[in-house]
Amino acid sequence: MHDQADKRATRDVVTFLTDFGWNGGYVAACEAVIASLRPSLRILHISHEIAVGDISAGALVLERVAPLCTPCVHLAVIDPGVGTTRRPLILTTGRGDILIGPDNGLLLPAAQALGGVETAWVLDPVRLREKAGLADIPLSTTFHGRDVFSPAAALISADADLATLAHETEAELLIRPRRPAWTVANEGVLAEVTEIDRFGNVELAIPFVDLPTTSTILSIVVEGEDLPAWKSRVVDTFARLGSGELGTLCDSWGYVALALNGASAAELLSVERGMNLRLTLLQPSPEGSEG
Amino acid sequence: MHDQADKRATRDVVTFLTDFGWNGGYVAACEAVIASLRPSLRILHISHEIAVGDISAGALVLERVAPLCTPCVHLAVIDPGVGTTRRPLILTTGRGDILIGPDNGLLLPAAQALGGVETAWVLDPVRLREKAGLADIPLSTTFHGRDVFSPAAALISADADLATLAHETEAELLIRPRRPAWTVANEGVLAEVTEIDRFGNVELAIPFVDLPTTSTILSIVVEGEDLPAWKSRVVDTFARLGSGELGTLCDSWGYVALALNGASAAELLSVERGMNLRLTLLQPSPEGSEG
Amino acid sequence: MHDQADKRATRDVVTFLTDFGWNGGYVAACEAVIASLRPSLRILHISHEIAVGDISAGALVLERVAPLCTPCVHLAVIDPGVGTTRRPLILTTGRGDILIGPDNGLLLPAAQALGGVETAWVLDPVRLREKAGLADIPLSTTFHGRDVFSPAAALISADADLATLAHETEAELLIRPRRPAWTVANEGVLAEVTEIDRFGNVELAIPFVDLPTTSTILSIVVEGEDLPAWKSRVVDTFARLGSGELGTLCDSWGYVALALNGASAAELLSVERGMNLRLTLLQPSPEGSEG
Repeated sequence: MHDQADKRATRDVVTFLTDFGWNGGYVAACEAVIASLRPSLRILHISHEIAVGDISAGALVLERVAPLCTPCVHLAVIDPGVGTTRRPLILTTGRGDILIGPDNGLLLPAAQALGGVETAWVLDPVRLREKAGLADIPLSTTFHGRDVFSPAAALISADADLATLAHETEAELLIRPRRPAWTVANEGVLAEVTEIDRFGNVELAIPFVDLPTTSTILSIVVEGEDLPAWKSRVVDTFARLGSGELGTLCDSWGYVALALNGASAAELLSVERGMNLRLTLLQPSPEGSEG
Repeated sequence: MHDQADKRATRDVVTFLTDFGWNGGYVAACEAVIASLRPSLRILHISHEIAVGDISAGALVLERVAPLCTPCVHLAVIDPGVGTTRRPLILTTGRGDILIGPDNGLLLPAAQALGGVETAWVLDPVRLREKAGLADIPLSTTFHGRDVFSPAAALISADADLATLAHETEAELLIRPRRPAWTVANEGVLAEVTEIDRFGNVELAIPFVDLPTTSTILSIVVEGEDLPAWKSRVVDTFARLGSGELGTLCDSWGYVALALNGASAAELLSVERGMNLRLTLLQPSPEGSEG
Repeated sequence: MHDQADKRATRDVVTFLTDFGWNGGYVAACEAVIASLRPSLRILHISHEIAVGDISAGALVLERVAPLCTPCVHLAVIDPGVGTTRRPLILTTGRGDILIGPDNGLLLPAAQALGGVETAWVLDPVRLREKAGLADIPLSTTFHGRDVFSPAAALISADADLATLAHETEAELLIRPRRPAWTVANEGVLAEVTEIDRFGNVELAIPFVDLPTTSTILSIVVEGEDLPAWKSRVVDTFARLGSGELGTLCDSWGYVALALNGASAAELLSVERGMNLRLTLLQPSPEGSEG
């Protein structure tokens, strides 16, 4: 399927993820800067609706979507430390991608998913802005998405000679992200809620393959909250569930998720991202005997 | 206006409509799959904010926007039956478009608006994924937007030989969508609310041309709710209305809509999509005599 | 960085700003019309989440983002007067841009930021629609974004001979926008809230350079509301602030903004866009002496 013209185009895509939202013109400001430097570059918007300042939520989405692209430039800006000493990063990956964004943990999970960090670089904003023809425009202290990272994405997608606008650093020095946790505990699993999607599906930090395979019925408790326990059944997809029945399934990223059929499991359980759920795994029993 | 280069490009557009929202990376996952298979393909996002699982709302938007495009590929995924026996469809239309999505009614209204169904095909996910080079990656049970429909859109936009990845079926076997209803009843019209837009305009299922043309004043009641009746005046556009005055007009899709000038008619009437409104049509009377 | 192919492409971008939102298919209807007339044209979405009917909010975002683009066509539609005698405009700017939208003040601030209005034109919808091959399709009274402004953007981006679809008018006759106000009053500044972004930052109408430079501590009161006064400290970026501390900074557009570190200043202050804040400027004092 990949004809010659298509292959040549792979350096002509930059993915873009932020927590900016669309209402203030911030996303468009970045896109305008990129397009002004390199009009032919295609921008693939991953999401700009990541919860404000939630580095680990952004890292999760980036880690999942980036590997579906052919190797390209990935620009990601969730940047509560903008204007401080936090470093502006460029990472190259084993697969041939280039990641650009702040050194706060946002990029590392994606880098791992893209074949691991091959080289790590700290952007030099002064040299970058000179090279981009922006040297005469003041650099803001609050919007490096527009002033540093976007010009970097445009320039680097055209010319990957990173030494002209950055200096190399040690991968070991990069800020590690907090990763959502899960542990096997007592007769079950304690797992953090990693994501609640638009459908109200509640995703947990535990890979589905790590659930004991003999367990087909689960009891679910929200840790630390005075809420009733819920029963759940392992199913392969949403439509297998009866009305109001809470299902446990392998979601499309390979993780355990709790779901209802046509309604929000998050609302039913009153859970939010970051809470912990305790899943007690029961042995299979005849259908209905638990009801 | 259509120069030669532009005409050649019409197979290089795929429209895309879902109920995924932008916050979980689902839309971008699909776009990444498409771009990885065919980087030069342009994606025209119709909407990803359709109410969750609302097939008929999605069908309505697709039916309206698709005919404004030159013939191209239309990808639409609102898919509560994902992972069950519901069939993955390809429809070709009289006008030369190709529609791709689940067999649940989502595609048919658009197909009608695009010249009618010419041929109907059931996708073979196994052959599709072989042809797309995805045979070694497991097929999820919950996200066929990414795993089936997006690769199909990429491949079919490049090569419309459908027999290589689908088998033909009878158009008569396709799942029919529920269409919003309206009836002439007593001295008026009973019509379902088909859409409430961001402006709070309340669109009804009845085409404006089917309102008796002599009616210039209407009385409006929300069916089955204990709410007061509202008076309304037929106007040609929003700005003809006084402050707080409820207008009835022909909206931009040719349907009857209720609107305020600079405020939400939906809030005023306390109505939601799917409710029924009864419009009592009065004969023209001298201005002010009803007030 | 701008190679020959890139330079040629600058007429191949149209920016697009509206208050349509994404849920009703309005944005896509416009994009479909544009793409059907000129498939190779790239659309750079600025925002479609401007508050409904808020011309001055839209003007602000357009004024800020448009200058970041290379000269191109800018399409902007916030149009409460659609279908009345309000005029459909084309403005050319000193920098070489073309602005298209309703004559209601939406375009003028951007035109000023793009080198000033050079020529002003009133679109002739009949000639436009003939030239676009749309003469046989009825012109709606409620959606000139789709029926007038989008075809205009497509045609004009391909051929800037405006006399074929518009007649020239006097720039002096254009509707002036209301601009957010600020005044020096008593010992401080009274300034309107111009924007509240997704981060909860409260932007004021006063340029940061117009704050007396010796002022490092501020007292802030919401004008006309019975709310307590807040103290604030001038900082260069968000991360300099302690938990719950209200900062005053120069935002990325050069204006005074109030912000918290990782929380919403708008919520803290209970302010909305359009309210007025009174800032009392104090002389620098030893740190902590005010606490």
